[in-house]
Amino acid sequence: MINSSRPIGVFDSGLGGLTVVRALLDALPAEDLVYLGDTARVPYGTKSAEVIERFTLEGATFLLSTDIKLLVLACNTMSATSLPALASKLSIPVLGVIEPGAEGACKTSRSGRIGIIGTSATIASQAYRRAILRRRPECQVFSQASPLFVPLAEEGWEETEVALLVARQYLGPLVAQQIDVLVLGCTHYPLLFPTIQQVAGPDIRLVDSATQTAAEVERHLQSTESRNTGAVGSLRVYLTDIPPSFIGMAGRFLGRPVAHVERVAL
Amino acid sequence: MINSSRPIGVFDSGLGGLTVVRALLDALPAEDLVYLGDTARVPYGTKSAEVIERFTLEGATFLLSTDIKLLVLACNTMSATSLPALASKLSIPVLGVIEPGAEGACKTSRSGRIGIIGTSATIASQAYRRAILRRRPECQVFSQASPLFVPLAEEGWEETEVALLVARQYLGPLVAQQIDVLVLGCTHYPLLFPTIQQVAGPDIRLVDSATQTAAEVERHLQSTESRNTGAVGSLRVYLTDIPPSFIGMAGRFLGRPVAHVERVAL
Repeated sequence: MINSSRPIGVFDSGLGGLTVVRALLDALPAEDLVYLGDTARVPYGTKSAEVIERFTLEGATFLLSTDIKLLVLACNTMSATSLPALASKLSIPVLGVIEPGAEGACKTSRSGRIGIIGTSATIASQAYRRAILRRRPECQVFSQASPLFVPLAEEGWEETEVALLVARQYLGPLVAQQIDVLVLGCTHYPLLFPTIQQVAGPDIRLVDSATQTAAEVERHLQSTESRNTGAVGSLRVYLTDIPPSFIGMAGRFLGRPVAHVERVAL
Repeated sequence: MINSSRPIGVFDSGLGGLTVVRALLDALPAEDLVYLGDTARVPYGTKSAEVIERFTLEGATFLLSTDIKLLVLACNTMSATSLPALASKLSIPVLGVIEPGAEGACKTSRSGRIGIIGTSATIASQAYRRAILRRRPECQVFSQASPLFVPLAEEGWEETEVALLVARQYLGPLVAQQIDVLVLGCTHYPLLFPTIQQVAGPDIRLVDSATQTAAEVERHLQSTESRNTGAVGSLRVYLTDIPPSFIGMAGRFLGRPVAHVERVAL
């Protein structure tokens, strides 16, 4: 029997996962959320699968100590490389962002030609491709690692000429493949939504894994009868480092100021 | 009495410090070098000074266990934030890249108007400014954090239209201040040399802290009579992660392939 009043844990490599928190706050305002961002070791997207798996287990272990009822891996890189191994080790359910993103892409695409952008590690894992082909084996999936989008979003340069030029470089080959859906497979990319949409053009629908994941969490809580029936949820934020750029960045990703932050060591 | 045949340790947050190794190999071919790159936690330039200091001590402790005679902090961010605290804890000499870079800038500048580019942490520390004003108090120092240059160099986009546009954005305000010297205060920036020089124009001399540091190491070994008198030195490379992009990146920074690499945990 699950105690529904326990919080939901959200784990990310840094601050980008606050875009998933934002979607969860909108979809499930009564839930208590505990966020962990491994800001001392961010980014994960350029590391080896082995190191990502080790760091993911360390973060999950910390979040388990806060008595969460469900763990959400907000980071696409973690979800793509480490979710099955992690889930087999934990006693609570673990949801990632890949399956919801793939589900959203498969439901949205008419032509079955789907593009994926993400970090180098996410693209190398082929996790999105597998999750899409499991649902719709006739699909054609085209992938493009887009690592520069992350520092562009962190620098606050999402809607600059530089961002437009970078987007043209990364998206050009996908657009040429006549995709009709593009999955934003990294927590940072929703900030680049207008720029990416401009370059992709009006015929390509963007699927954001953050909102898809919030919907999946809601379905999960519903089906396991573990929704929090309290009034208004809370948000606790734990970070492994609090860098000087934290306040500006956190505000941009979350869409509102972050009230309380605590530093922890993993 | 220093045993001259002991190796020199070179510590960097990632692979960028291989530009310093390259300069050392050119200047001091008889020395044995032990390189440590903290690739599992790179970059340091966006972290807080407190976390950078902790990571720097952990890396230095590992290198000390390899019996080095001298420690070179190849990373500007480490040198700017952690060198004095680290030096007071170690029993061997520690050289950073800030003092040699500042020395080079002061010797090169005629007008005394000097520009500095570096990571956010390096610029925030004001270490270059202090080191320059200590030597030439009449100088005017203009600083600009340029964080996007690092991922551009790592992506191999050093000589693209994107790099040119980013360089114009960062360097524009410095050029407007009529600087006559620009210090490349990050190990990655030498890869962007042609692009930065193109944007800076012919009247601005670029000072690369890597070559300045190699010269300083040579002076130090000379004055302490601890040069290795052997024939040909060796290079051992230790990394905390070996990411898939390692071979390409290491080759670009070092200017030749890296022969042997070992993974270590700090």
